[in-house]
Amino acid sequence: MYDRMQELSRQDMEKIHDAAMDLLRTTGVAFNDEEGLQIFKDNGFKVDGNKVFFQESDVQKALETAPKRFTVHARNPKKSVEVGEDDFVFLPGYGAPFVMDAKGNERQATMEDYDNFCKLIQTSPYIDMNGWMMVEPADMPHQTVHLDLNLSNMLLCDKPFMGSPVSKKAALEGVEMAEILWGGKEKIMDKTVSVSLINSLSPLQFSDEMIGSLIALAKNNQACVVASLIMAGGSGPVTLGGVMALQNAEILAGITLAQLVRKGAPVVYGSTSSAMDMKTGALSIGAPELSKNIHLVGQMARFYNLPSRAGGGLTDALCTDAQAGVESAVALTTAARAGVNFILHSCGILGSYIAMSFEKFLVDEELCGMIRNMFKPVSLTDDAIDLDMIKQVGIGGQYLTHPKTFKLCRTEFYMPSLMSRKNKDAWAKAGKQHIYQVAEDKVAQRLAAYEKPEINPDIEKELTDYVEKRKTK
Amino acid sequence: MYDRMQELSRQDMEKIHDAAMDLLRTTGVAFNDEEGLQIFKDNGFKVDGNKVFFQESDVQKALETAPKRFTVHARNPKKSVEVGEDDFVFLPGYGAPFVMDAKGNERQATMEDYDNFCKLIQTSPYIDMNGWMMVEPADMPHQTVHLDLNLSNMLLCDKPFMGSPVSKKAALEGVEMAEILWGGKEKIMDKTVSVSLINSLSPLQFSDEMIGSLIALAKNNQACVVASLIMAGGSGPVTLGGVMALQNAEILAGITLAQLVRKGAPVVYGSTSSAMDMKTGALSIGAPELSKNIHLVGQMARFYNLPSRAGGGLTDALCTDAQAGVESAVALTTAARAGVNFILHSCGILGSYIAMSFEKFLVDEELCGMIRNMFKPVSLTDDAIDLDMIKQVGIGGQYLTHPKTFKLCRTEFYMPSLMSRKNKDAWAKAGKQHIYQVAEDKVAQRLAAYEKPEINPDIEKELTDYVEKRKTK
Repeated sequence: MYDRMQELSRQDMEKIHDAAMDLLRTTGVAFNDEEGLQIFKDNGFKVDGNKVFFQESDVQKALETAPKRFTVHARNPKKSVEVGEDDFVFLPGYGAPFVMDAKGNERQATMEDYDNFCKLIQTSPYIDMNGWMMVEPADMPHQTVHLDLNLSNMLLCDKPFMGSPVSKKAALEGVEMAEILWGGKEKIMDKTVSVSLINSLSPLQFSDEMIGSLIALAKNNQACVVASLIMAGGSGPVTLGGVMALQNAEILAGITLAQLVRKGAPVVYGSTSSAMDMKTGALSIGAPELSKNIHLVGQMARFYNLPSRAGGGLTDALCTDAQAGVESAVALTTAARAGVNFILHSCGILGSYIAMSFEKFLVDEELCGMIRNMFKPVSLTDDAIDLDMIKQVGIGGQYLTHPKTFKLCRTEFYMPSLMSRKNKDAWAKAGKQHIYQVAEDKVAQRLAAYEKPEINPDIEKELTDYVEKRKTK
Repeated sequence: MYDRMQELSRQDMEKIHDAAMDLLRTTGVAFNDEEGLQIFKDNGFKVDGNKVFFQESDVQKALETAPKRFTVHARNPKKSVEVGEDDFVFLPGYGAPFVMDAKGNERQATMEDYDNFCKLIQTSPYIDMNGWMMVEPADMPHQTVHLDLNLSNMLLCDKPFMGSPVSKKAALEGVEMAEILWGGKEKIMDKTVSVSLINSLSPLQFSDEMIGSLIALAKNNQACVVASLIMAGGSGPVTLGGVMALQNAEILAGITLAQLVRKGAPVVYGSTSSAMDMKTGALSIGAPELSKNIHLVGQMARFYNLPSRAGGGLTDALCTDAQAGVESAVALTTAARAGVNFILHSCGILGSYIAMSFEKFLVDEELCGMIRNMFKPVSLTDDAIDLDMIKQVGIGGQYLTHPKTFKLCRTEFYMPSLMSRKNKDAWAKAGKQHIYQVAEDKVAQRLAAYEKPEINPDIEKELTDYVEKRKTK
């Protein structure tokens, strides 16, 4: 298809591949985790201190066993999702320490906020999966908060969810809770029920927490997104060409480890690299460089036959304003069009990941709905074109009262749930509201109307007991 | 390239083509203009009253002479633009009766507003052409306002501009003014210096004003966008498949007439059809159906080897809020990516064409800049990837102080002129402004810093005298 965005040739992709292979072979990647290093040694890799060196054949072997798609099972089987190839999922924002309210006041996030995001996800027509740490609750003990987040994910929402990669222990506890929810270890060894985010520490490193989690999750057949977030000009080269090579090396290194742990472990090729703002030295995720990277990452993942992660509704704006709308729409539509499969951060993020906003969540969610609609192909059957009707209405006729219009008018078009189509008088009469103000009311309505999805009370008790026991241990 | 947006197969496009041919042959198109009807008769078309019937060979002949690209010359030759194939232009909003201010107060537009938009266009790094009737000045006599608009376009801005299609007389006066500006009729018969918008009156009609203008402009080698704006479910079928067929018939009918008037007259295949909002009965231009249509129109125009028009930064929102940002970004990026060549309404539109906003103009303009940047391919030369540097920085190193970062940091990344990358403390200190408030200040600064481009004073006087004379006639 004609597109003014850059299409990588096979030669381009091979060049990025070769550059990454060179780095993996000569510079290597540091894995700050003994178990991880031992796995590499056991598989005959050259290891020097914490540095691991890869041969191209090692990476190729991993790419042969990594699946090109997988299902993430939900406890409500109707809500299971497919990740890979043409299938993709929208997920909420991730990792924000603050909540920004509609008045522009920021505050530390609480467990109640986290639960409220779970409730919005549960009631969302467009968010396909529950996330992880949409906000970091400051009112919960740091050491055990992952247990509470898992519990909320499992009880407040019956969609598939993300897992806890904060440490090996936390990852394993997440797996144990999933085993309770599904009724036994053998149940989840058969099916992937969570996806966790494993970030590299650019350039060319992985922390012990991330590698410990990756090993624990891959062993248990739980999916890992292996992602690199390079700040071009800071933690990586100032050129996007250099970023492509560097992130490719990091991602392939992590994916190779996952396949050594368990052949066929579901993995996702991920990146959210973007530009450093040269005035402030901070990461900019409203920058067009983010979308350029997203677009190329989608292509590189397909080159490797892997599902991809990039995205999402990202912005540097600190309020739900026109800047937030523009930047989020550019990045999210780019990710969705580029074939990205796991679109994290689709909804809610403000200020370069610093905060989540309930109002922005709803605006972004509507955008997700618009995007899904845009991808539905226009039907060109004889019945859809209906030349007879066009001839019948003829020159200067009108279609409004035609029976076909009556028949289809409720189903043919996308119906916005938030965006306003009021005319100027109706808009003025309703108080000239900006959309974030409309969203503020809708958030309250959505939360008030929320109903907890049914769950076997024995399982709920077992999960709650598990969390209590672990907390007091 | 992989894309989740619909790709029309050759068969799909032929189906849309055949449907349009059937309509043109059997139902025909009404041209409410004697001169137009006479041209068709003289060329052997079947004409019945005001209805003209087309054979496929008539359309094919027109498509053979219509150019696939053309230059629009600016009086400042550095600012001439190319329309067609990979080349495209961003233009401002068109036809809004109101100005919406930053406080949400609407008022009737004035000539001063029109001039201010000309000044913003002149000083814009991203808007390539001046428009036409960005706003309709309510303080000027209706009969002669086109003269004032032409004069402002020519004097306040030295970019190429759009022409006046409000009537045959107005179109010819625009041509005469262009002759003064360029120094004689022969000058503009050689080169296209304006592009005018000729809209059909759906379904299957053209008004006398539009046809009179089209004939006058095509005769004088001035470009015409032949565009159909169908409201699906109102002035056209409720299905987008039906809309594609109907608009194709209308556009090809207009283009055929232009080629009968003058073989090789530059024409553009245009559409901004969208959905009717079934709750209000009004056109929705924030609807995803708009972008679906844009995406398909780009493909149909390429099928015919014609430049295309669709777009742009369109929204139903009545203020420059997150909805305006999302909707405008979705439609504008879709148009630019789809290969659309003439992207009208790129900047400023609010409320489904009811108003222009100076603040939104600046937000949309920044989006145009982001889009241009996104299309610049990432360099994958050895120098751009620079493996030696990546190896040198190595594991855990940093790139911020590397000489290459210093060398490239000012040129490698897009530098926003409006969008904020402030951190939360700096943003709070600056008053927690939404971007429309920042834009309000920037509009004032831009207008204050505006300088009228140089022009030969004799030509300026001749143009001013022409307008005065015509007004008093």
